[in-house]
Amino acid sequence: MTNVVINKLVIIGVGLIGGSFALALRKAELARHITGVGRSRENMTRALKRGLIDEIAGDLPSALKRADIVFLAVPVGQTGEIMAKISPYLEPDSIVTDAGSTKQDVIAVAHSHLAGRLHNFVPGHPIAGAEQSGAGAARPDLFRDKNVVLTPLEETSGNAVDRVKELWEACGAQVSLMSARQHDKILATISHLPHMLAFALMNHVYHTGHGPEGTPCPNDPLHFAGTGFRDFTRIAASSPEMWRDICLGNREALADQIDDYQRELTALREMLARGDGDALEKAFASAREARQQWLKKTS
Amino acid sequence: MTNVVINKLVIIGVGLIGGSFALALRKAELARHITGVGRSRENMTRALKRGLIDEIAGDLPSALKRADIVFLAVPVGQTGEIMAKISPYLEPDSIVTDAGSTKQDVIAVAHSHLAGRLHNFVPGHPIAGAEQSGAGAARPDLFRDKNVVLTPLEETSGNAVDRVKELWEACGAQVSLMSARQHDKILATISHLPHMLAFALMNHVYHTGHGPEGTPCPNDPLHFAGTGFRDFTRIAASSPEMWRDICLGNREALADQIDDYQRELTALREMLARGDGDALEKAFASAREARQQWLKKTS
Repeated sequence: MTNVVINKLVIIGVGLIGGSFALALRKAELARHITGVGRSRENMTRALKRGLIDEIAGDLPSALKRADIVFLAVPVGQTGEIMAKISPYLEPDSIVTDAGSTKQDVIAVAHSHLAGRLHNFVPGHPIAGAEQSGAGAARPDLFRDKNVVLTPLEETSGNAVDRVKELWEACGAQVSLMSARQHDKILATISHLPHMLAFALMNHVYHTGHGPEGTPCPNDPLHFAGTGFRDFTRIAASSPEMWRDICLGNREALADQIDDYQRELTALREMLARGDGDALEKAFASAREARQQWLKKTS
Repeated sequence: MTNVVINKLVIIGVGLIGGSFALALRKAELARHITGVGRSRENMTRALKRGLIDEIAGDLPSALKRADIVFLAVPVGQTGEIMAKISPYLEPDSIVTDAGSTKQDVIAVAHSHLAGRLHNFVPGHPIAGAEQSGAGAARPDLFRDKNVVLTPLEETSGNAVDRVKELWEACGAQVSLMSARQHDKILATISHLPHMLAFALMNHVYHTGHGPEGTPCPNDPLHFAGTGFRDFTRIAASSPEMWRDICLGNREALADQIDDYQRELTALREMLARGDGDALEKAFASAREARQQWLKKTS
C-alpha cells in the first residue's frame, strides 16, 4: 500500500498534538508542505525552528488556499469558533479533521459551521497525551501504538475517512471507527470519570484536613500520603480549563457514568456496613482480575 | 544520642516489613541477635540465607525467651491469633510492637490477649510498602523518610514508646504519635478510601464493557484505556485478602469517608447537570492546587 503524499497540510494549533502529527507525517514523508496557524507567536516560532511546520500562516485565507488536509488541534471548547472562522475560506476538496476529546459536541458545532461540507469532515480523537504541552513537547512517536478513534457522520464520504485513517496509521496509530455517541460513552468511562474521581478525592482530602476557612488541622492527612496516593491523584493535576470543556462537552454520558459508579461504590459501602468480608474479598478479587486481564491484553 | 542495642529481637512474620526492619536495624548496628518466626519454611530459609535473621525459631517459648523487642509483622487480620499464642511465653520486660495498617482493631485484640502487659505494648504502623512481598523483597532503606505512626494506649509506658520510637528513627523513618482513632481516620482518608475507589472503578469499567453473563461488548472501553488509567488503578492490584482485613478493621472510619466522598462527587455531578462551567473549573483548580501544595511540601 502506498499512501498519497499531502501537498499542503494546514495545522491549526501547533501544540503537543498538532506538532506531533506534523513530525510523524514528515518522518513518514507524507507531507510536502506544512502551514501552521496559531495564536502564540512564541509557540509558532518554536514550531518553525523545530521544523514542525514550513511556514507560519500570515492570514487564514492564504493559509487555507489549496489545503489538502486541515487538522484542528485546538482545545475542544474552541472548535466551534475556529470552524466559523475557517469555513468561508475552505476549498471544496479540503478534508477537515480534528483531535477533540469529545465528539458529539464537535459534531454539533460542525453542523452549525461546516454545513454543506460535512462529506469532507472526519471527526477524530487521538487517545494520547503527555504531561507537557506546546510545540516544544511535540515528538514523532507520540501516536505510536496509541488508539485513534474516528467518528464519521452519515454525510462523511468513505474517501475522506480512508484518507484520514491512512494518515493516522502512518503515524503508527491503531485506528477504530465508531459512532460519536459510543466514543463519548467509552471516553466517559475510561478517562472522564477517573478524572472526576481524582478531582473529587483531592478536594475531599483537602476538606478533611482543613477547617471551613482553610485553617489546617493539626494532623493533615496529606502529610501521611505516599506513592500510591500520588499515582492515584496524578490526573488531578490536569488543566482545569481543558477538563471544564471536556465535562461540558460530554455532560450526559459523564453524568450517567458517575451515577453507575456511585452505585458500584455504594454496593461496596453496604458490604462494609454489614461486615461481609467474603463479599468484599470477592469484589476486590474481581477488580484485580479485570485489571490483570487488561494489562495482559495491552502488553 | 546513643541508642541502646537490642540483645534479642524477635520478628514474627519475616516478610517485606519484618525483614526490612531487621535489615535496617542490623545496618544501624542496633540488633545483636534476631530470631525469626514464620509459617513458610521456604520464606524463613530465604530470610536466614539473606541474613535478615540469625536463626529460625524452633518453638515459641524458646524464641520469646529473653526477648527485648517482639515485632509483629503479620497481616493485620492475624494479629489477635498471634497475640493469643505468644502471650503465655512473653517475658515481663519484653516490649511488643506491631506494624498493622489499622490500629483500633489491633488495640481491641490487645485488650483481649495482652491484658496485664499493655504498659509494654506499642501499637505502630509504618506507612511504607512496595509491590513485592516476602523476605526476598526486604531492603534496609524501605522506611527511609517514610512515616511511622505510633498510637500508644493510656496504659503504655513512656519508656516503651521511646524505645520503639528510637528504633524506627534508626531505620530512617519520621515518627508521629497520635490516637488510634485519629490514625484510622487519616489512613481511611489517604489510603483505604482511594483503594475502595480504585476497586470500584475497575469493577464499574468491567461491568460497562461486559454483558450480565460476562460476555464482552463489541467495543470494550478498556481497549481504549491508557497510561492515566493504568496509574489510577494501580492500587486495585492490591491483595484482596489484605484489603478485606483492612476494611473490616476500619469499618466505621472508612464508611464515613465513603459518605463524605460521595457528597463531594455528587456536588461535581450537580455542577455538571446544570452546566456550570465556572463552578467545575473552580473545583478542578482547587483540586490541582491542593495536590501541588502537597507535592511541594513532600519533595
